[in-house]
Amino acid sequence: MADTVKYVLEESKIPKAWYNIVADLPTPPPPVLHPGTLQPIGPGDLAPLFPMALIMQEVSAERYIDIPEPVRDVYRQWRPSPLYRARRLEKALDTPARIYYKYEGVSPAGSHKPNTAVAQAFYNKQEGVKRLSTETGAGQWGSALAFAGALFGLEVKVYMVKVSYQQKPYRKALMEAWGAQCVASPSTETNAGRQILKEHPNSTGSLGIAISEAVEVAATHDDTKYALGSVLNHVLMHQTVIGQEAIEQFDMADDYPDIIVGCTGGGSNFAGATFPFIGAQLRGGKKVRVIACEPSACPSLTRGKYAYDFGDTGHLTPLVKMHTLGSTFVPPGFHAGGLRYHGMAPLVSLVQEQGLIESRAYTQTKCFEAGVQFARAEGILPAPEANHAVRGAIDEALRCKREGKKQTILFNLCGHGHFDMQAYIDYFAGKLEDSAYDEKELKAAMADLPKVAAE
Amino acid sequence: MADTVKYVLEESKIPKAWYNIVADLPTPPPPVLHPGTLQPIGPGDLAPLFPMALIMQEVSAERYIDIPEPVRDVYRQWRPSPLYRARRLEKALDTPARIYYKYEGVSPAGSHKPNTAVAQAFYNKQEGVKRLSTETGAGQWGSALAFAGALFGLEVKVYMVKVSYQQKPYRKALMEAWGAQCVASPSTETNAGRQILKEHPNSTGSLGIAISEAVEVAATHDDTKYALGSVLNHVLMHQTVIGQEAIEQFDMADDYPDIIVGCTGGGSNFAGATFPFIGAQLRGGKKVRVIACEPSACPSLTRGKYAYDFGDTGHLTPLVKMHTLGSTFVPPGFHAGGLRYHGMAPLVSLVQEQGLIESRAYTQTKCFEAGVQFARAEGILPAPEANHAVRGAIDEALRCKREGKKQTILFNLCGHGHFDMQAYIDYFAGKLEDSAYDEKELKAAMADLPKVAAE
Repeated sequence: MADTVKYVLEESKIPKAWYNIVADLPTPPPPVLHPGTLQPIGPGDLAPLFPMALIMQEVSAERYIDIPEPVRDVYRQWRPSPLYRARRLEKALDTPARIYYKYEGVSPAGSHKPNTAVAQAFYNKQEGVKRLSTETGAGQWGSALAFAGALFGLEVKVYMVKVSYQQKPYRKALMEAWGAQCVASPSTETNAGRQILKEHPNSTGSLGIAISEAVEVAATHDDTKYALGSVLNHVLMHQTVIGQEAIEQFDMADDYPDIIVGCTGGGSNFAGATFPFIGAQLRGGKKVRVIACEPSACPSLTRGKYAYDFGDTGHLTPLVKMHTLGSTFVPPGFHAGGLRYHGMAPLVSLVQEQGLIESRAYTQTKCFEAGVQFARAEGILPAPEANHAVRGAIDEALRCKREGKKQTILFNLCGHGHFDMQAYIDYFAGKLEDSAYDEKELKAAMADLPKVAAE
Repeated sequence: MADTVKYVLEESKIPKAWYNIVADLPTPPPPVLHPGTLQPIGPGDLAPLFPMALIMQEVSAERYIDIPEPVRDVYRQWRPSPLYRARRLEKALDTPARIYYKYEGVSPAGSHKPNTAVAQAFYNKQEGVKRLSTETGAGQWGSALAFAGALFGLEVKVYMVKVSYQQKPYRKALMEAWGAQCVASPSTETNAGRQILKEHPNSTGSLGIAISEAVEVAATHDDTKYALGSVLNHVLMHQTVIGQEAIEQFDMADDYPDIIVGCTGGGSNFAGATFPFIGAQLRGGKKVRVIACEPSACPSLTRGKYAYDFGDTGHLTPLVKMHTLGSTFVPPGFHAGGLRYHGMAPLVSLVQEQGLIESRAYTQTKCFEAGVQFARAEGILPAPEANHAVRGAIDEALRCKREGKKQTILFNLCGHGHFDMQAYIDYFAGKLEDSAYDEKELKAAMADLPKVAAE
């Protein structure tokens, strides 16, 4: 057998609908609560932030939602994305396991994020919105929305977590190349930003703070809506093109995963790759072991409480029930900036509560070690976020070796590391630190969760 | 018609042979001369530098040379590369022209360079070589060889032009991620490097100097061969997978280019995209206008002399007949580092002498302007080198608009700009300078060409 095994689908096999796991779950998701009244909200309450089409997707219980043709048209630029069998990695590990990876780094922005950015830009454009505001951590999401905005003729304003803004000038330049505006958060442009700067003049920002800023801008400007790159139901749903394609590609390979591994920050790439498989299982299909890999420095799934919490630090967003470390928790600096979020997507949290997935936490040096091993075998340099999935997949392959099991492992390689080279430089120089969070701060943040009668 | 039009070939359509334009040229290429005797050399003279399989390709007059199956196997990771119709760019330009681009940025190293790097690594491995030495300017070639070396288990040593080494730490990190060693050239590791540093302690290097270093290492170590990323016949030939695929893809599109545009530094991506079309024309097929776009700061095709010259500054390499600015010419610093070479591939020079191609020179700011326009329309951010081809294609499309002509334009988008973001930052900040070369220095370098009896 040749070393390079790539499963390529025809363009016509780009999914025609997004998959909504809510339709197949044994219990429905808990309601979203208003930040002021703490009572369940209706679609109208979200109208200042999102176009109605996305709000209806957010609350939908339909199993499939049609993908508009103009969105599929843009998807065609890089979709269907390839599924690879990692034969050279299997050889390097000397494992009896079969390792496959779905590669989302083929998009122009270099990650899975355009799958939802394009959809969100389309619906906003359709409803007459002129401008989108958003936040970004590592920059993957901000880049993706800048790309989508350029294609649909929307202005894009990105609040980038200050520490990333300073460390990653090239991400900002990429957004600007696509015509977006990018500012460091906390900024002096919003009340939320000014408030933080007053209390913490040297704040290096957090996703929670940047979300507050972007939400405030949308809520206070009629021509502007807010776009979120993960966490929400509709965002996760847009990512299900990944898993749906993978199912078709496993048909081609005449194989099926025993284990699926993904990395989790907000949860969208993980959900996109795994929900179609979990849904098939819930409808009577083959059982799959699904493993979420998160950074040990921001361990929402493995250490967080399943409770109602705000999505942002400024408490402007509605409350959702999720695994959370507390909305005031600021994780230590580490290089997978896309995974530095205090909460987890409500639907990912729910499937963990329902025993459909398991989770584990990894330190960053172990993840970079796996990423470099992968790059030397397979030729693709993963993003630091994706290295968590690589680590998880390699660990499972090594377990298969110890146990002499010929299992099939799929992981989602959600993006390349071209804009994260400083992290690799630090890794090679032995300068990467596996800094833990402050246990006291975490406890304080988790003790400070909002009291919600519904619980 | 949808905006995204992508022509995807099946894997089985990856070419089974490389195309050698020598078989179709009206006159054979002038012989290569020994640097000491200035007499034509035989294959044996090149044996210290290259494996015999590549030497035989270098001097071959066969039209097709089979691609070994292990090389095609690696190609499968990203080939066939997509051909896109740039519909959104056409709309932005409001041109009646049809614009297509072949995208080589899909390779793991992000450019066309792996097409030859993989082949060279394969043949060297097959002949028992342990280590490859090479030079790199912007880093595209060094990265590609590092990638290929990792796959075939070869050590790779890269001499990187010092100014690029200092400006582009991320390129070095990418090479190291694949396990290669990268040092700044001129270095103290070689006689050639030490000699330069003695005369010019602050030398920021040049491709010519880096080639001298890499050649010296290969010539003085039995287990080490030299690998070149452009210029030579066999390198250009390996790139013809690009044009051969494009011909098949134009069949799918039921179209054929009137005009093909490529950027030229050493000439390999240009030759790879255009030679299969020029060959078809020479064998009685449709006439195509072929345009080479080069930087006005290093204008070998538009200003150079067609004459015998050394490939390197240290005069260690054989002499080839080519368009040259003189081997001692050091172009001013500009951001398309891959185009900063004093000479041009002998075969590209020859087809220009035979009237089969035309050439033009562009300043870098005009090229970045085109690159940003392309990115905002098509979503892909080109490498600074590729921006020269984008500029040429846009100019032709605008000419079609003025003249009301529905011509078909193809250009080769040879790589993405993910490792060139500082150049875009400088461009947006208005800091890019269109520095010209020193006219006196150019004249001096061209007056200093070796005297060869054969001319």
